[in-house]
Amino acid sequence: MPHGRGFTYNRRVHFSETDMAGIVHFSVYFRYMEEAEHALWRAADLTVDQIETTGGWPRVSAGFDYKTPLRFGDEFEVGVRIGNVTRRSFRYDFTFTRGGDLVGNGFIVAVCSSKEGGRLHAVDVPQEMIVRLKGAAGQ
Amino acid sequence: MPHGRGFTYNRRVHFSETDMAGIVHFSVYFRYMEEAEHALWRAADLTVDQIETTGGWPRVSAGFDYKTPLRFGDEFEVGVRIGNVTRRSFRYDFTFTRGGDLVGNGFIVAVCSSKEGGRLHAVDVPQEMIVRLKGAAGQ
Amino acid sequence: MPHGRGFTYNRRVHFSETDMAGIVHFSVYFRYMEEAEHALWRAADLTVDQIETTGGWPRVSAGFDYKTPLRFGDEFEVGVRIGNVTRRSFRYDFTFTRGGDLVGNGFIVAVCSSKEGGRLHAVDVPQEMIVRLKGAAGQ
Amino acid sequence: MPHGRGFTYNRRVHFSETDMAGIVHFSVYFRYMEEAEHALWRAADLTVDQIETTGGWPRVSAGFDYKTPLRFGDEFEVGVRIGNVTRRSFRYDFTFTRGGDLVGNGFIVAVCSSKEGGRLHAVDVPQEMIVRLKGAAGQ
Repeated sequence: MPHGRGFTYNRRVHFSETDMAGIVHFSVYFRYMEEAEHALWRAADLTVDQIETTGGWPRVSAGFDYKTPLRFGDEFEVGVRIGNVTRRSFRYDFTFTRGGDLVGNGFIVAVCSSKEGGRLHAVDVPQEMIVRLKGAAGQ
Repeated sequence: MPHGRGFTYNRRVHFSETDMAGIVHFSVYFRYMEEAEHALWRAADLTVDQIETTGGWPRVSAGFDYKTPLRFGDEFEVGVRIGNVTRRSFRYDFTFTRGGDLVGNGFIVAVCSSKEGGRLHAVDVPQEMIVRLKGAAGQ
Repeated sequence: MPHGRGFTYNRRVHFSETDMAGIVHFSVYFRYMEEAEHALWRAADLTVDQIETTGGWPRVSAGFDYKTPLRFGDEFEVGVRIGNVTRRSFRYDFTFTRGGDLVGNGFIVAVCSSKEGGRLHAVDVPQEMIVRLKGAAGQ
Repeated sequence: MPHGRGFTYNRRVHFSETDMAGIVHFSVYFRYMEEAEHALWRAADLTVDQIETTGGWPRVSAGFDYKTPLRFGDEFEVGVRIGNVTRRSFRYDFTFTRGGDLVGNGFIVAVCSSKEGGRLHAVDVPQEMIVRLKGAAGQ
């Protein structure tokens, strides 16, 4: 879908996500990114069961650059794209906006894993899964 | 303290910090980093009041590289160092270990701010504060 | 609205809300109750500003009875009703269901307060507010 | 230990546990209660493995009465006692104080369970465990 609009997850800030500085706590943006990731999985018709058997896709790396704080009640949008794909990991890139304003940018690098006997081990990235996620992301 | 051992914050993993994959949720490491930051502030004899008037030092950027997962009940150590200092921001570098094993590395870039009339605005980094934080960090 | 259907807040369980037992952590239901409370406020056309000036309605008491656990990805409904109203406090009653199954029941007793000079103090319950909340709740 | 002083868990409030009202979010007290519960387990020499095989002791009911808010940096104490024991569940009672001041009281009723094949089912309360928990609680 080369002309796609991309995938957007819509969210409103909950009271419990603010801190005493009156803004959303910086750690909460990482939960928001994961919510957007899972919304993309649903859009790609990848089921909850598939997420469970992967152990929740353990993270190799994650980061966020904060531009404008979010506050209680704010409605914001999280755009998601699939970034660099390696043999056993791939990257999500997230863009947070409120109205037209940039809230910040973040990323998650997840490793493909399988849960067997209660332990996770890395496996090759399933190519079909990437195709479906990119499709859902309008890439 | 050029020969200092550095500053270490000790912590145990709480049950509520785990997720259904059986490991600490990746967003929780950002709360751990902030706890270590504030422990360093206390070690530097910078008071809670000073933290409050700064609005909690809004974050410009934060990231974490995950090496080995933490699990419920694990006792781990967070080493803290002051990294790059610019005119209005400075960086903390964090090293997480459990026993001798590396759990991961992270960073926070905080902007120096002042809270007036309920709003934050950026101010120059107070040099004396950096001296005291570096002293407490054994740098 | 004597024949009203009542007010329902719809929610999906996020991954970060689960714990290593594979179910939603018991503390998270209290965040869910607050989300449903604020959704009712919005339905009653009470603005975010009004919520802010009240200091978030400090809680006097809160409780939850757990019947069936929620799991990652579950879609559930939170019914809200206004319960007992005293001079300075009032109670919300919550019923959580998933499909037709009862997940649990909870309550919050909130005190009416005003934030002045950074401190909260109790005030009489504004009767008009109760009328509007009950209207939104279909009572 | 009829003349025991009881068991106390000591804690400091983290920044991320506050909300925009400037106080600890009401849901966080439930995480504090669980931390005190697990500290009591450790004091009773009940191992983490035992906690894991029980699925984290699913909660039947939990509640808290709030007297005085906790704020960032506050050091507080959580006293724990074992309350009513039934065939398949038992109750913890918690008293939160800061200095000599009462912060609030809470409780958790936990069901004794066993995790087999990924699912929890209720089992009879092991009497020896109750004896050990009461011993650690100075009852």
